[in-house]
Amino acid sequence: MAETNLRVLLRARPEGKVGPEHFEVKEEGLPSPRPGEALLRNRYLSLDPYMRGRMSARKSYAAPVEIGGVMVGQTVAEVVEDPTGTFRPGDIVLGGSGWQRFCCVPVAGLRKLNPEAAPLTTALGVLGMPGTTAWVGVTEMSPPKPGETYVVTAASGAVGGVAGQIAKRMGARVVGIAGGPEKCAFVTGELGFDACVDHKAPDFPELLAEACPDGIDGYFENVGGAVQKAAWPLMNEFGRMAFCGSIAEYEDKEPAPGPNLGQINRKKLSLRGFIVSDHPRAFVEWRRIGSRLVKDGSLKYREDVVKGLENAPEAFMGLLAGKNFGKLVIDLG
Amino acid sequence: MAETNLRVLLRARPEGKVGPEHFEVKEEGLPSPRPGEALLRNRYLSLDPYMRGRMSARKSYAAPVEIGGVMVGQTVAEVVEDPTGTFRPGDIVLGGSGWQRFCCVPVAGLRKLNPEAAPLTTALGVLGMPGTTAWVGVTEMSPPKPGETYVVTAASGAVGGVAGQIAKRMGARVVGIAGGPEKCAFVTGELGFDACVDHKAPDFPELLAEACPDGIDGYFENVGGAVQKAAWPLMNEFGRMAFCGSIAEYEDKEPAPGPNLGQINRKKLSLRGFIVSDHPRAFVEWRRIGSRLVKDGSLKYREDVVKGLENAPEAFMGLLAGKNFGKLVIDLG
Repeated sequence: MAETNLRVLLRARPEGKVGPEHFEVKEEGLPSPRPGEALLRNRYLSLDPYMRGRMSARKSYAAPVEIGGVMVGQTVAEVVEDPTGTFRPGDIVLGGSGWQRFCCVPVAGLRKLNPEAAPLTTALGVLGMPGTTAWVGVTEMSPPKPGETYVVTAASGAVGGVAGQIAKRMGARVVGIAGGPEKCAFVTGELGFDACVDHKAPDFPELLAEACPDGIDGYFENVGGAVQKAAWPLMNEFGRMAFCGSIAEYEDKEPAPGPNLGQINRKKLSLRGFIVSDHPRAFVEWRRIGSRLVKDGSLKYREDVVKGLENAPEAFMGLLAGKNFGKLVIDLG
Repeated sequence: MAETNLRVLLRARPEGKVGPEHFEVKEEGLPSPRPGEALLRNRYLSLDPYMRGRMSARKSYAAPVEIGGVMVGQTVAEVVEDPTGTFRPGDIVLGGSGWQRFCCVPVAGLRKLNPEAAPLTTALGVLGMPGTTAWVGVTEMSPPKPGETYVVTAASGAVGGVAGQIAKRMGARVVGIAGGPEKCAFVTGELGFDACVDHKAPDFPELLAEACPDGIDGYFENVGGAVQKAAWPLMNEFGRMAFCGSIAEYEDKEPAPGPNLGQINRKKLSLRGFIVSDHPRAFVEWRRIGSRLVKDGSLKYREDVVKGLENAPEAFMGLLAGKNFGKLVIDLG
C-alpha cells in the first residue's frame, strides 16, 4: 500500500472562536518535488498563536491561508528524497512546512540540524522562532536597564519564558504574568522570574500593582485585553513596551477599544511592534547565544508535546485558550 | 506712584473646559530678587497648550500650578536689575517666567538675546521651545525617509508648521491637518506642505484617506481625538508616530478610549512619546539650524500676537479651542 499524505486543511474561516468545524483532516496522495525542491517527512510541527491570523482574511503582515489550503506551520522534518543532491535521505532539517505528514519545499529554505547538539524540538521553540522573538523583543524593542522592572505576559509560554530570562540576564527585576497558580509556580520556581502574577485571580490588577511597587519600565506584550489594561497605568516615565502579540484578542470578532494614547506623550513612552521575520540577523545571533545557554543548562524551557497530527486542531484551540503549558509542538511520529 | 506687578493667578482647577472663572488677574507689589536672581520686566509671554496640564492636579511630567499661584509660562524679558552683575539693565533675555509683568528668576537660567538677529518673539516660537519640539519630534521620534508620506496635525500651529517643513526637507510628501479652509490654505500656500486636510469637514476621514493614497508612514500627533482616530487605520507597516500632545483631549473630563493596540504589532509600528525638555541637546541643534533658515527666509512661520496681559486668559481659551492662527504670544507692551 502506497503511503498517503495526511493533511489538516482550512475548511472555513472562523468568525471569533476557532472550532473543529474550521478544519478538515484529509488523506491525499504524496506530493512530488518540483525543480529545486526536496520531499520531506515532517516529524515535529510547531503550533503558534500567529496561525490564528492566517485563518482570517483580515489584512495582516502575511497572506491568509486559502480555504481548502493546508494550514501553515514550520516543521522539523526528515529528508525522504532530494533530487538537488543538497541533502541526503535521512537528514534532519528545519524548514518543512504545513500541518501535514509530507511536504515538498525548496531546499534553499532548509537548514540541516544536528540531532546530537540539542533535542530536535528546540529548533521550533527555545532556539527557533519563539526564542528569537523573545531575543528581538527584549534586546531591541524594549531593552531593560539594570534595576528596572520588566513585565512579561504569557510568561510560561514559548516566547515569554525566554523573554523573562533574557531580561533577567540584563539586570532587570522580572515579573511574569501567567494563567493559574501552576504556571506561576513554574515561572518563578523553574524559570527564575522574581515574581509571577496570576491573571485569572479576581484581584489581578491589584496583585500586579503590588508585584511592581516601583512601576513598570519594560513590558513584553503577548496577550492584550485585560492584562494590557492592568499594566497600562503602571507604566513608568520613559517606559518601553514591546508589542509581540495579543493572543487574548485573536478570537474577538471586533477589536475592542484600547487605552487613551495621551499617556504615551505624558510618560514619554516608547511602544514598538515587531514581527521576528523582519529581523533575520536576530535568528543568527540567538542561535549562537541561545544554543550555548541551552547546552549549559542555564536557560530553562518547557515543551508541551502532543502526539498525532490529527490532534493538531484541538491542540491549537487549547493554545488560543491558554491550555498548553510550554511550547506547543505536534509529534507526527 | 510705584509700579505694581500685574499677575494672572490660577483661581480654581478646571474640570473639563477652561473658563474665565479659573483665573484671577491681580495687582501685587514688585518682587525683590533673592541671591542669584535678577528682576525682569516681561515683554512677551508664550502661551502653549501644555499649560492646560499645569492647571490640573492630574499627574503629569511637571508639577501643577498651585491654587493662587501665578500661571507658568516662558517670556522674553528686559533686565531691570541684576545684582549678580551678569546682565545689564536693558538687556533682553529669554527665560523670564510667568503670566506676570515682573518676575525674579535665577540668572543661571537666562540667555541673552540679540534683538538685531531675529524678531524677539521668534525665541518663544519658531526658534524656541515649539520649534525645537518639532525638530525632536520629526528627526528623532518619527524620522521620515524620502518619498514617504508624513502627516502633521495642528499643521498651522507653532509646532506643526515647523514639523512639516522639517519633514519636507527630509524628502517626505507632507500632508497637514488643520481646522478650517483659511488655515489649510496657509499650510499649503505659505508653509509649502503638499496637501492639507480640514478636520472640520464632515467627511474628514475620507478626505484624509484621499490625501494619503499611499498610506501614512510618519505621523506627528499634536491633537488626538477624532483626528487620531481617522489617521490610525491609514498607518503603513513600519510607520512611526511621534506623540507630542493631544490638545483636542485636554478639556475632556475623562480620557476617552483609544484604538485597539493590536495594530502596533501587526503593522510593526513605532510610537514614541516625548517632551522637549528631556532633550536639551536639541535646543542647541535647532537654534543653530533653525536660525539660519529663519534668516534666509526659507523657514516660514506665523505668529498670533495678542496685546495686553489681561487678555491672556481669553487668548489661552481660544488656543485650546483652536482659535489662534500661528504661534500665540502675549505682548505685554
